[in-house]
Amino acid sequence: MAAGGVSILITGSEVLDGRVSDTNSHHLVRELASRGFEIRHVLSCGDFLETLKDAIGALVQRSDAVVISGGIGPTADDNTRRAVAAFLGRELEVDAGALAHLEEFYRSRRRVLDDVNKRQSYVPRGAAIIPNPMGTAPGFYCELPEGKMILSIPGVPAEMKKMFEATVLPLLLERFTPAPRYRHLVRMFGLPEAGVGGRIERAGIDDSVEIAYRAAFPEVHLQLSAGDSAVVAAAAAKVREAIAAEYIVAENDVRPFEEILQEMILARGLTISAAESCTGGMVSALLTNTAGSSACFIGSSVTYCNEAKTRLLGVKPETRAAHGAVSIETAREMAEGARRAFGTDIAISVTGIAGPTGGSTEKPVGTFVAGYADKSGSEAHRFFLGSTRERVRGWAARTALDVVRRKLLGIPIGGR
Amino acid sequence: MAAGGVSILITGSEVLDGRVSDTNSHHLVRELASRGFEIRHVLSCGDFLETLKDAIGALVQRSDAVVISGGIGPTADDNTRRAVAAFLGRELEVDAGALAHLEEFYRSRRRVLDDVNKRQSYVPRGAAIIPNPMGTAPGFYCELPEGKMILSIPGVPAEMKKMFEATVLPLLLERFTPAPRYRHLVRMFGLPEAGVGGRIERAGIDDSVEIAYRAAFPEVHLQLSAGDSAVVAAAAAKVREAIAAEYIVAENDVRPFEEILQEMILARGLTISAAESCTGGMVSALLTNTAGSSACFIGSSVTYCNEAKTRLLGVKPETRAAHGAVSIETAREMAEGARRAFGTDIAISVTGIAGPTGGSTEKPVGTFVAGYADKSGSEAHRFFLGSTRERVRGWAARTALDVVRRKLLGIPIGGR
Repeated sequence: MAAGGVSILITGSEVLDGRVSDTNSHHLVRELASRGFEIRHVLSCGDFLETLKDAIGALVQRSDAVVISGGIGPTADDNTRRAVAAFLGRELEVDAGALAHLEEFYRSRRRVLDDVNKRQSYVPRGAAIIPNPMGTAPGFYCELPEGKMILSIPGVPAEMKKMFEATVLPLLLERFTPAPRYRHLVRMFGLPEAGVGGRIERAGIDDSVEIAYRAAFPEVHLQLSAGDSAVVAAAAAKVREAIAAEYIVAENDVRPFEEILQEMILARGLTISAAESCTGGMVSALLTNTAGSSACFIGSSVTYCNEAKTRLLGVKPETRAAHGAVSIETAREMAEGARRAFGTDIAISVTGIAGPTGGSTEKPVGTFVAGYADKSGSEAHRFFLGSTRERVRGWAARTALDVVRRKLLGIPIGGR
Repeated sequence: MAAGGVSILITGSEVLDGRVSDTNSHHLVRELASRGFEIRHVLSCGDFLETLKDAIGALVQRSDAVVISGGIGPTADDNTRRAVAAFLGRELEVDAGALAHLEEFYRSRRRVLDDVNKRQSYVPRGAAIIPNPMGTAPGFYCELPEGKMILSIPGVPAEMKKMFEATVLPLLLERFTPAPRYRHLVRMFGLPEAGVGGRIERAGIDDSVEIAYRAAFPEVHLQLSAGDSAVVAAAAAKVREAIAAEYIVAENDVRPFEEILQEMILARGLTISAAESCTGGMVSALLTNTAGSSACFIGSSVTYCNEAKTRLLGVKPETRAAHGAVSIETAREMAEGARRAFGTDIAISVTGIAGPTGGSTEKPVGTFVAGYADKSGSEAHRFFLGSTRERVRGWAARTALDVVRRKLLGIPIGGR
C-alpha cells in the first residue's frame, strides 16, 4: 500500500434515506486527489454506533488516513466521537481547549452551555483538536500505529470546507507528502465532446499526462495533469494545436464565461444590449449575472411574439413574411433594433425554435439564428443543436455571448 | 439484520480522482429508500479487481442485497463482472441471450463485434441477465446463500436508471417486500427555513411521522413520511394549519413552480408580460422555461438603465427623481408600461438593488420592489433579502412570479 491512500467516511442518516445528496465527499475527493493523494474508498453509512465503528475499522485497514465528515454535533445521533473512541478502545475525555471555546461561544451569544452541548468538547483520549472557527463543534484527529490517522470534521459543508483547508489538508500533506501534480485546464465552447476527443487522441500527447474530460454544458473542459510541469505545458501546447484556437474560451480560469466576457467588454469601454426570442431572457440574465454589469449592459427586449418584434425592435413585417421569424434577416433587424432602442455600441439577438413543437423540415427544433450589430453594420448566423428545450435554450444563449467574444477578438463566426 | 438492507457500490476511478461527481448513488438511494428499503452502505471504490472483490465481500456481509453500478463496459478497467465471479468463486461464461443481443446491436449499426466487445456477454456462472434496452452492456444478478443477491448494472446514468426501474427494483421488491412508506411533500415559498421549523415543532405532529426539511432555494420543502397513510394525511393537515396557506405553493407536485404558474395563467386564458431591472431577464427566462409558454407570455423589457425605463416603459423622469428607481411608484409605472407595450392582460415588474454595491441606509442591498398591473390598475410591494447578488436576484425573480400566483388566487401580497 503506497503511502498517501486516504478514505473518506460520510456519516448521517439523511444521506442514506435520500433526503440529502452528499456533496461533501466530492469536495474532499477533488481537493485531495488534486494534491496527489490516492483516494481509496468513499463510504456513506448511517450514524449508528456499531455501524460507524465497523466502518471505521474497515477503512483504517485499507487506508493510511481516514477523514470522517459528520456526526460530531450535540444531538443523540451524533455518534462519530463515540465510534472512534470505541474503535480505538480509548475513553472519551473533555478537551480543556475545546471546552473553553464552547464556553466562550455560548457566553458571547448570551446562551447557557448545557450538558448536551458540552458533549462537543469530548474527544477520544490522546486526540488533538481540529479548531472550528465557524461553529461550536470542534473536530479532532487521532494518531494510530504505523503512522495512520483518523481525522473527524463536521458535516455542515461550510464548516467542513473551512476546517479541511485550515487543518486537515496541512496535516495530511505534512504526514504523507504526496508527489505534486501539475494541472492545466482548457475550456472549449462550440465543439461536441466526441469531436474534441478525436482531435486530442491524434495530438500525440505524452503518455505520462492524464487527460480528463468534463462535460460542463455548454462547455467541454479538458484537464491535463502530470507530475512534471514542463510535460504539462508541452501537452497544453499540443492541445492548442489540435483544437482550433477559436474554440478555446479560457485556460486555467474557472470564472463563469459571462464574467470573462464582461471584462472584455468593459476593457473596450463598450455598451451592449440584446434582443431575445427563443432564449426568453437568458442572454440578458447572463449579461447581468456579474457584479458591475450596469457599467456596460443597458437593457434588452424579449420579444416572444411577432407583433412585439415589430413594435419594440422595428422588425419589418415584410421581412418576417418573406423569411420567417427564425431567419438571418429577422435576427439582423432584431440586433439593429435593440442597438437603436437602447443606444448601445453593440447589440446581439437570438431567434430560434426551442421546441418541443414548432419545428419544420427546413427549420427543425433546435435551429436558431444569432445576430450582431455594431456601428459598421449587422450580421447573423444560423446554428443547430438537436436536443431538449432546456439545452437548446442554454446553447443558444451561450452562442450569442460567444458571437460577442468572437467579434471582439476578430475571430470569424462559424455558424451553419 | 432486518430483511431489505441494501448497499450500493459505485465503481470507477473517475469518481475517486475527482473528475466526476457521483450522482448515481443519490438516485439509487432515493428510489430505494422511498420504497421502504433500508440503505446500509454506499461505497465508491476504484475499479481494480482486488479492490472490487474486497468491497463486494465487505458489503455482502453487511447487507441483504448489493447493487453495483459501473464497470461492466468493454474496456480494460471494467472489472465488475470479473470481481463478482472471483468473489463467488465461479467462472465467467458467455450468456447466449446477451451475446445474441450484442450481435444484433452491432449488426443493426453495421459494425463488427470484436472480441473486446464480446466480453460484455460474459457473466458469472449461474447469473441471470438484466436487459439493457439502451446500450450494449447487459447487467446481471446472482443469487447467494441465505437469500442474498448481487445485482450489477452500468454506470452510464441513463442506462442505469432505466435498468434499475425496469428490472432491479421489481426484483428487489419481490424478494424483500419492504414495509411501505407513505409520503407527503409540502412546498413553501416566502418563509425562512427557521421560521417553518418553529411553527412545525409546535404543530403537534404524531411522533411516528418522520419530518424532513430540504432547502430547495428559493423554496423550503417539507417531507412527511410514515408507515400509515392516515397518519401522514393527519400530519399534512396539521402542517397546513401551522403554515399560513398563502405560503404553500404546491403539495405532492414536483414540477418547477413556473410550470405550475403557467398552467394557472393558461387556465384563465390570460396573457402576461414583464418589466425587469435588477433581475435582468430572469423573470422572463422563468416564464419561458416551460414548453407552450408562447400561448401566454408575450414579451418583456429588461431596462437596466434609467433612460431605458423611460423610453421603453414610459416611466416618468419625475417619478424616478422623486422616489428613485427602486420604489413603489417606479415599479408600478414599469408594470403599467409593460402591460401597455406588450398589450397583455397582466404585467409584472421588478426593480431592486442586487448588490454587492449600490445600497443605502434607506434601501440596503437586497431591497427590491415587485409591481403588478392588470385591467383594474396597478400595485407594488417592497421586499428584502439580505444575501448574495445571486440569491437576491433569484429570490426577487421568484417573488415576482409569486405575486402573480397570489393575485390569481386572491391572496394578499405580503411585502414589507
